Amino acid sequence: MSQKRLVSGIQPTGKMHLGNYLGAVSNWVHLQDEYESYFLVVDLHSLTTVYEDPERLRQDKLDLAIDILAAGVDPAKCALFHQSDVPEHSELHLYLSMITPLQWLMRVPTYKGKIEEIKGKDLDTYGFLGYPVLMAADILLYKAQVVPVGQDQLPHLELAREIARRFNSLYKKPVFPMIEEKLTQYPVLPGLDGRKMSKSYQNTIPVSATPDEMQKLVMSMLTDPNRKRRTDPGNPYICPVFAYHKIYNSPTRQEEVSVGCQTAEIGCVDCKKECASLLIDSLGSFRARRAELMKDTSQVSAILTKGAEKARNITTQTIREVKQQIGL
Amino acid sequence: MSQKRLVSGIQPTGKMHLGNYLGAVSNWVHLQDEYESYFLVVDLHSLTTVYEDPERLRQDKLDLAIDILAAGVDPAKCALFHQSDVPEHSELHLYLSMITPLQWLMRVPTYKGKIEEIKGKDLDTYGFLGYPVLMAADILLYKAQVVPVGQDQLPHLELAREIARRFNSLYKKPVFPMIEEKLTQYPVLPGLDGRKMSKSYQNTIPVSATPDEMQKLVMSMLTDPNRKRRTDPGNPYICPVFAYHKIYNSPTRQEEVSVGCQTAEIGCVDCKKECASLLIDSLGSFRARRAELMKDTSQVSAILTKGAEKARNITTQTIREVKQQIGL
Repeated sequence: MSQKRLVSGIQPTGKMHLGNYLGAVSNWVHLQDEYESYFLVVDLHSLTTVYEDPERLRQDKLDLAIDILAAGVDPAKCALFHQSDVPEHSELHLYLSMITPLQWLMRVPTYKGKIEEIKGKDLDTYGFLGYPVLMAADILLYKAQVVPVGQDQLPHLELAREIARRFNSLYKKPVFPMIEEKLTQYPVLPGLDGRKMSKSYQNTIPVSATPDEMQKLVMSMLTDPNRKRRTDPGNPYICPVFAYHKIYNSPTRQEEVSVGCQTAEIGCVDCKKECASLLIDSLGSFRARRAELMKDTSQVSAILTKGAEKARNITTQTIREVKQQIGL
Repeated sequence: MSQKRLVSGIQPTGKMHLGNYLGAVSNWVHLQDEYESYFLVVDLHSLTTVYEDPERLRQDKLDLAIDILAAGVDPAKCALFHQSDVPEHSELHLYLSMITPLQWLMRVPTYKGKIEEIKGKDLDTYGFLGYPVLMAADILLYKAQVVPVGQDQLPHLELAREIARRFNSLYKKPVFPMIEEKLTQYPVLPGLDGRKMSKSYQNTIPVSATPDEMQKLVMSMLTDPNRKRRTDPGNPYICPVFAYHKIYNSPTRQEEVSVGCQTAEIGCVDCKKECASLLIDSLGSFRARRAELMKDTSQVSAILTKGAEKARNITTQTIREVKQQIGL
């Protein structure tokens, strides 16, 4: 039986951090075995928010590809590529733009929110409004059946479904299959200050940090603010460090750490040291693979070129079919 | 000295009529000698207003290409092609969308007007709003220096200039040259009812009409409404038929017709007969060439394919340069 087809993308907007890693890329390593997978570094999406810094984009998109490969994504099992190397994304985006009511885009909950968030950045552009149309094109171009998403991306996925339904109904042919969502399993990882880990909060742990840097970052994390002295008992359930133990430590040891915190048996410094060491260990093979890839980044470029070729086997077919349906 | 580069497009939205012919295509026949010319059948633009009728679009875009060739546009002197056969239009459209403020589009005078005009047609789409971005891409993709336009297109041309300026300034390189406008010389040709000739008014004379059909259409034209009887003197300056004499008749004969009308020496029926005969004669070689082309439309398709290839020699270069500047 043939595998279902899956599409997933990640934006190159700075160094990959633990949140990206756990939320998306580490999932890809499992997904590539289960699905016919197309993994995109969505550099065109980056342009919707960062269009004025070409050098940074160029660096970020290469860095991200390296990090993804270092994470264990295997080009023999999937197609990994830069979105802008597959020009059919732009083409389908344009065709879908013709049948997408403006009101659908204005109503997307993230739109008004993001406009607020990025105030003063001159981002109220036509392209920024069209973000969900581009995302719909990313999915539909591959006729993907499965799309892994975080909760925050659900409105965009719903819009992609609506656009697909509208296309199929207008042109009287089920060109695009209906899309199953696959909610990512990892919880939101707290950043150094306890808020969601996010570049815009500057509270991230980059996965490419050295063990020393990582140790320092973990040691700088906030803990339960009520535990002021070593002898005060703490509350692990509000402590960001304990959230890390829940991901990286064994269940038995999690229990011990929890009890130790609440009885003040374990101090925050020791607790963080243990957390840092677990984190650093978990990324051992990532660092080894990354060091290997960094020796010759031209092999990374070659992998991406090949990935784009693989993708275009599908996308050129889809565009041919879509143009036929539209009357072009 | 090398020729300046010129881009001009025409939308396939039904049979070409005399207004299109005089306003655009007959100009092309002269322009192709003076400029390095890229003539586009802009089928992607058609999708902004007609996206729900694939069969009609397919027919219209072929018909229009045939009419253009029949008008004397010579594929040896220019590149004639369908816009959708050059995928770089979609690519540049997407890149430009990222740097085009939404407000610039909302402010285009034709936008609000058109929205009113097409009420009830469900045309308030993302693509419809982006019409001027697509037009900017059409021009900038060829780094065109000259664009022939009608008065009504001037706001779109100004927007294309602003987008070009913004791109050049953001990416610190004069990638796009400034655009000269070339206002078309022909006055607006009245339709059968005296209003502007336009498909939406159903008052057109199709250039591909047979002599008989053309004769009938001219005979059905409105004249000076105050000239009720044959013996009433008429006012040629408000008569649509006289507007045709001014284009198709010799200056001496124009004068005679004008005096004849004002003195009731010439009746409307004779005046129209003369007008029809001039019009029919003027399109003699058009009809001959058209009949020739209709014998084997596959030669038309071959001409268009070759035109697109010629265009892509330029467009793939521009896209390479643009991607480099943006950081892709």
